[in-house]
Amino acid sequence: MDIKGFQFSAVEAAIKKPGRKDLALIFSEVPATACAVFTTNAVKAAPVLLSAEHISSGTAQALVVNSGNANACTGQHGMLVARDTAHLVAEKLGISDEAVQVCSTGVIGVQMPMERLRIAIPGLIEGLSSGTLDDVAEAIMTTDTFPKMEARSAQVGGVSYTVAGIAKGAGMIMPNMATMLSFIITDAVVEPAVLEKSFRRAVDTSFNAITVDGDTSTNDTCLIMANGVAENPVISTGSAAAQEFELLLHDVLLSLAKQIVKDGEGATKFVEIRLTGAKTDGDAKRAALAIANSSLVKTAFFGQDANWGRIFAAVGYSGAEVDQSRLSLRFDDVFLARNGVFAGDDAEARGTEVLRKKEFAVTVDLGLGSGCATVYTSDLTHEYVSINADYRS
Amino acid sequence: MDIKGFQFSAVEAAIKKPGRKDLALIFSEVPATACAVFTTNAVKAAPVLLSAEHISSGTAQALVVNSGNANACTGQHGMLVARDTAHLVAEKLGISDEAVQVCSTGVIGVQMPMERLRIAIPGLIEGLSSGTLDDVAEAIMTTDTFPKMEARSAQVGGVSYTVAGIAKGAGMIMPNMATMLSFIITDAVVEPAVLEKSFRRAVDTSFNAITVDGDTSTNDTCLIMANGVAENPVISTGSAAAQEFELLLHDVLLSLAKQIVKDGEGATKFVEIRLTGAKTDGDAKRAALAIANSSLVKTAFFGQDANWGRIFAAVGYSGAEVDQSRLSLRFDDVFLARNGVFAGDDAEARGTEVLRKKEFAVTVDLGLGSGCATVYTSDLTHEYVSINADYRS
Repeated sequence: MDIKGFQFSAVEAAIKKPGRKDLALIFSEVPATACAVFTTNAVKAAPVLLSAEHISSGTAQALVVNSGNANACTGQHGMLVARDTAHLVAEKLGISDEAVQVCSTGVIGVQMPMERLRIAIPGLIEGLSSGTLDDVAEAIMTTDTFPKMEARSAQVGGVSYTVAGIAKGAGMIMPNMATMLSFIITDAVVEPAVLEKSFRRAVDTSFNAITVDGDTSTNDTCLIMANGVAENPVISTGSAAAQEFELLLHDVLLSLAKQIVKDGEGATKFVEIRLTGAKTDGDAKRAALAIANSSLVKTAFFGQDANWGRIFAAVGYSGAEVDQSRLSLRFDDVFLARNGVFAGDDAEARGTEVLRKKEFAVTVDLGLGSGCATVYTSDLTHEYVSINADYRS
Repeated sequence: MDIKGFQFSAVEAAIKKPGRKDLALIFSEVPATACAVFTTNAVKAAPVLLSAEHISSGTAQALVVNSGNANACTGQHGMLVARDTAHLVAEKLGISDEAVQVCSTGVIGVQMPMERLRIAIPGLIEGLSSGTLDDVAEAIMTTDTFPKMEARSAQVGGVSYTVAGIAKGAGMIMPNMATMLSFIITDAVVEPAVLEKSFRRAVDTSFNAITVDGDTSTNDTCLIMANGVAENPVISTGSAAAQEFELLLHDVLLSLAKQIVKDGEGATKFVEIRLTGAKTDGDAKRAALAIANSSLVKTAFFGQDANWGRIFAAVGYSGAEVDQSRLSLRFDDVFLARNGVFAGDDAEARGTEVLRKKEFAVTVDLGLGSGCATVYTSDLTHEYVSINADYRS
């Protein structure tokens, strides 16, 4: 994977337990076109507020990120820390403060140890010469059990470019930029309008279509930087190249989103929820999310119990228009219910077989229209409870 | 406890495992003024559809209820079973089918074994001479670990009357008549308008203010029957007696609602969430429910972890208007956060002490207005996962 014009670094700043890198930097050798989507939570972490302010210019050149402390619910002091961090990084790199994006993930409500950041930043910047994107992917992990990366390449006019991304989960996963950090970088030359439009659409069908526990965090950020160092013919609005770029971007984001679900806290199952036949796409997404967020449905997945009635119950309270006599439900290709009632015969035994797999699809058809949506979720397990009961201890 | 003019019965109909009563009857010797609230789920069980139809008359005389099978997602056949059940009971009692309320709770999507009901109903009716309300409370239990009952008495014009109620939980507990069955009976003479208004208001601040897992069931029903056998002076609109009746009713319902939360699946904590200082009461309830339904908050309660940031995060995504610099949070009397930030010093140690208790209150003040709401919830535990992963096995 060769993403031209980007440098990476990761160090131990002692924000987390000793022995783990917890501070990382992505640096573009030239200013990059950039856009980002942030958490919809009304309680926003200081770095989210700062980064939203900085990115309004449409460009960025560096991204500094720490794990171990979310710098959320930290008031004025938290804002000062975020600003100081941007300033220290900018100064060392010889760029403006506004060109620096700041991201944090970790425990909420504890003040960030600014002195540790101050001490660590010089080494962070020196490390740029030798770091890789992998190092950054590892440094942003919290309860993640594996680093999440994806990359794709394509050509425009005979010139190659690459889109690469990293992400971290794994609790507080819920659509609407609830949840996670993901950073996408590309060396492509892209019109800003193409970048923004493609990015927002790709986020909608990837990160905004996953849910682990329905909680929306204070820090979620998904950011893209395009530095143009590949020097391809510009990818412009309405072109075939723009279509291809959007597909590529979507593939990278969806891969990262699925990795987040697979690494959902304590997850043992990866479930694709397909909702079809809804009156509208909005209804389809509402119903799919109700299923994906239902504790009763998710514990049944964990128990490998073909308890399809719970799925219909979730659809029923989702707010989507529902005619219960038209509902059908499949686990992979096995019909569990048709016209709202049990499909009979060996449906349950065959459905249970499907649930024994690590990955399967649940398809619910509402029988009312052509609205559809797909979301991805995990099961709810003993391990989820253990992880979250003991997160800080 | 003496509730005049009501008879009770409970038998084994072999719908559940052997050795457990699963079919019960409440019978009023005279037609009773009645009203009910049913699940808001668009997927409604057959008995819910039938009972809603029957109660539109404003009266009821009998209530037959089974546990072990919800008769939900059972289509036309399920409706026939519900109608047959009402008819068999009505015939034996010598009343009209419409005077019979039918309720079911248990597994969804499995056809009810009508033959077993047919065989059991004669014995059920014979048992009326010797049964008690306790028998009914026990027969409606599913994953409940104890029967839930409450009763209160008062006087009007020197004549005593009693309000008694029973309920069952304990999964699928979530406001808006999500969840549970509760039957309230009184021998008071009450104007129908007083009965209905008091009942709906009492439901709003009791059953509609509790949540265990955020799932809304297909079968929830809360029903009240007032048979007037106490022969007190009529409790009429606007009277002091009507106020007292409403208070009494509220006490009974709130006690039952709290019992349901305390018996929440796997619950080890009972938590009162008090939301104050909201712009509106609606905002307060939204924010309180977001806290009460957050898996991250609930696992932290289980882990006795004073992770107050998760509570602010839940408030932030609740949809309520929030200014994060004005938020404050207490566990009982211990301030964990003020003006959106950690209260400092020994707040965490003292907060953790509170969380070690079996019952405590979490008070969040939004600092914006005078809207307030209280909801009741439990923690999310390993046992919840076990119960729901294995419910049918």
